[in-house]
Amino acid sequence: MKEKTIDYVLRTTWLAVKKMYNEEGIKFKSTMATGFTLLSIDPGKGTPSTSLGPKMGIGVNSLSRILTAMELEGLIKRRPNPEDGRGVLVHLTKFGIISREKARERVLMFNDAITNNIDKEKIDSFFEVTELINNLIGNKLIFTENKENAK
Amino acid sequence: MKEKTIDYVLRTTWLAVKKMYNEEGIKFKSTMATGFTLLSIDPGKGTPSTSLGPKMGIGVNSLSRILTAMELEGLIKRRPNPEDGRGVLVHLTKFGIISREKARERVLMFNDAITNNIDKEKIDSFFEVTELINNLIGNKLIFTENKENAK
Repeated sequence: MKEKTIDYVLRTTWLAVKKMYNEEGIKFKSTMATGFTLLSIDPGKGTPSTSLGPKMGIGVNSLSRILTAMELEGLIKRRPNPEDGRGVLVHLTKFGIISREKARERVLMFNDAITNNIDKEKIDSFFEVTELINNLIGNKLIFTENKENAK
Repeated sequence: MKEKTIDYVLRTTWLAVKKMYNEEGIKFKSTMATGFTLLSIDPGKGTPSTSLGPKMGIGVNSLSRILTAMELEGLIKRRPNPEDGRGVLVHLTKFGIISREKARERVLMFNDAITNNIDKEKIDSFFEVTELINNLIGNKLIFTENKENAK
């Protein structure tokens, strides 16, 4: 296994991106996790807290920790969900909306830097490979005897 | 920003892979972090602890926590580095070597499942895009005015 494997490249590349966002975030006293959460919240009507975790791919405890910190920073407010008596709706404050816009700019800057430096076809293939990975994992086709049937 | 961005896809795909490995690892009382560390250690001559962190893209504290747990599980031993008086060499135990082999099988299974289900050309493009991302980040060309000069 001298060649790099797909999982290895995914991991190291994501860690590099995360580190880059965290370093950029320091300028705004922010982090990758905060920026990503801001972007996952609907700035208009808010987002139910129960749908945030799945959307972000993190567990209830991690999400709760992030939301508590963000509420203390004045970025969000948690309010009862009028459409679900026991549910909580996460809203952005004005400061949260401004911060979300900054996070969005950074994400687009990153995205443009990549797409401006390589053929669109290759970017499409990149997305196609990640889609295949998610499909094979989602359908539990990796560590089974059925993996030949995948596609 | 209705389309998925590159960072978003990298993050969610890596988290899906990590979850898959952790679920598979439960069968062997192992985790993604343990498997990845096993694979980062030279099974023959061991690996200096100082080079493990950079190789795995994690900090000193996280690495130390993982190594302590792995030593307790009997997977590794930490010994003085004969070539560096103050340094530590991380060796695999026999159990560690067997476990490393299992981890390696899983990584190859995953890698094969993906490469068997898509054109090699697209896999090559996937690798090329991740390389570009790492290069642009490594050369600090994302959040600067100089990004036009990148390539």
